[in-house]
Amino acid sequence: MASPSMDEVRITHDALDVNDAFVRATLPSTGATSIFVGTTRDNFDGKIVLKLEYEAYEPMAVKQLNILCSEVREKWPEVSKIIIEHRLGEVKVTEASVIIAISAPHRKDSLEAVDFCIDRLKEKVPIWKKEKYADGGEAWKENKECCWKGDKNKE
Amino acid sequence: MASPSMDEVRITHDALDVNDAFVRATLPSTGATSIFVGTTRDNFDGKIVLKLEYEAYEPMAVKQLNILCSEVREKWPEVSKIIIEHRLGEVKVTEASVIIAISAPHRKDSLEAVDFCIDRLKEKVPIWKKEKYADGGEAWKENKECCWKGDKNKE
Repeated sequence: MASPSMDEVRITHDALDVNDAFVRATLPSTGATSIFVGTTRDNFDGKIVLKLEYEAYEPMAVKQLNILCSEVREKWPEVSKIIIEHRLGEVKVTEASVIIAISAPHRKDSLEAVDFCIDRLKEKVPIWKKEKYADGGEAWKENKECCWKGDKNKE
Repeated sequence: MASPSMDEVRITHDALDVNDAFVRATLPSTGATSIFVGTTRDNFDGKIVLKLEYEAYEPMAVKQLNILCSEVREKWPEVSKIIIEHRLGEVKVTEASVIIAISAPHRKDSLEAVDFCIDRLKEKVPIWKKEKYADGGEAWKENKECCWKGDKNKE
């Protein structure tokens, strides 16, 4: 049965490992593990992006990720494990900045929960990213959806 | 741009590797890779399941998987890579029987495409599974949704 100990939330400067998240999420009692991986893309609005750099207000980010796990469990009580990992610091093109892995006995719950989780993470969790361009420039990017929007650019 | 060479469909007796599918699906131009992994669950209708055994009508299964890729590209033209791998033979509890990994520049396309893809695979692709129970019994299971339903049990 689902319980808070089935939630694993982590913010780290280490590289993220998709297989590790899959293995930790998948239990003998589950038949479906859905995974979303956000990776650094090499372009934004026609500019060549070399890498992204992430910063978080860590205590609040971890708190919000735990709230997010509770929301998932309320909406999808059949969900088994929830793993949410976000990387901070530099993340090169094709590398993972965020992994969400959610398992359940049946696929519908795990698919819907992952979909909800990444939308909600973008909206609620105070993590910012700086794009570093091939031309030497850089720019802070907020999540368009984020309720924390604007804080970073006011600095 | 998406093209048929961006589809990788495979039916194999080898163990499936989630990280390998993630790495192959993720391109410099993509920012989102969504993955669904179907795994063997240790129970069905109150019986303890030790493992599943998969069989396919391979030429037709591969053909249907390629048709499925075309359907995804028609519905989500922004999708980049589509990887669909299905394992045959014995698959133990917690091991992967199917992996779908789909990348796109933005997350919505990859999430929706994976969701569609696994539903459609269950519905259209002629792959059957036999459940092997702790009590020594076994039973062929069809996908409830499958249009090929019934063929195996008529043998």
